[in-house]
Amino acid sequence: MVDILHRVAIKSSPAEVYAALTTVEGLAGWWTTDTQGKGSDVGGVLRFRFPNGGFDMKTLDLDPDKHVLWEVVEGPEEWIGTHVDWNLSQADDHTVILFKHMGWKEPVEFMHHCSTKWATFLMSLKSLVENGQGAPAPDDIKVDNWN
Amino acid sequence: MVDILHRVAIKSSPAEVYAALTTVEGLAGWWTTDTQGKGSDVGGVLRFRFPNGGFDMKTLDLDPDKHVLWEVVEGPEEWIGTHVDWNLSQADDHTVILFKHMGWKEPVEFMHHCSTKWATFLMSLKSLVENGQGAPAPDDIKVDNWN
Repeated sequence: MVDILHRVAIKSSPAEVYAALTTVEGLAGWWTTDTQGKGSDVGGVLRFRFPNGGFDMKTLDLDPDKHVLWEVVEGPEEWIGTHVDWNLSQADDHTVILFKHMGWKEPVEFMHHCSTKWATFLMSLKSLVENGQGAPAPDDIKVDNWN
Repeated sequence: MVDILHRVAIKSSPAEVYAALTTVEGLAGWWTTDTQGKGSDVGGVLRFRFPNGGFDMKTLDLDPDKHVLWEVVEGPEEWIGTHVDWNLSQADDHTVILFKHMGWKEPVEFMHHCSTKWATFLMSLKSLVENGQGAPAPDDIKVDNWN
């Protein structure tokens, strides 16, 4: 099993970051405008759609302003059963996010792509919370010929 | 051992990307302006310096327009002995980079930070080659409270 790891810090309260991870409005502001479902209840399912496909995430754990854990229940084969883990902590005037997309079976080329995409989406999340403007799909930053 | 993985694609020839990875001028244009040494010979050492420290990389393998492999010989403790591996291939009008920073002993918080930083530096490399303008340190994109 291999994991994608990232760390960003956002000048904001943990509550603001937590809201951007657990509300449809927040998620649509940095990941993909086509976000539906419910992210604020354990057991709820979020549906994220992109021009070329999408993912359904079941919320497995929520600890307000501290932790969010999703399981991928629908999407590309390589994603099914993987977990997306968000740990929030406060450091001075920043909220630090330790991000993990855990449980890839193999370090396939698609995993390399997703690692870079997650980084740019995390920067989109940072921009949304700090400046009110993210870069969600379909107007997301293109990193390669797979977009 | 755990690895940082990324994938970017650059609208350019492999030769242009290879030059940006093996010349001091190229490296200074996307990673850090304070780059010295020699990147075009196997066994040569490149010295990259940032406001808060830096890295020395020994070139272990070069295959023109296809492959670059560095070993970290000086820098933060977690980096020493790790390898930075660049695989280039052509896909239509793009050069695809498969990037690996391999051999981390543990998935420490600093590794999360470096993963996100590598992504933003790879986007800086893409911007340099495609548009003639990268974002090397000290004017690099800040991802967190560690910068």
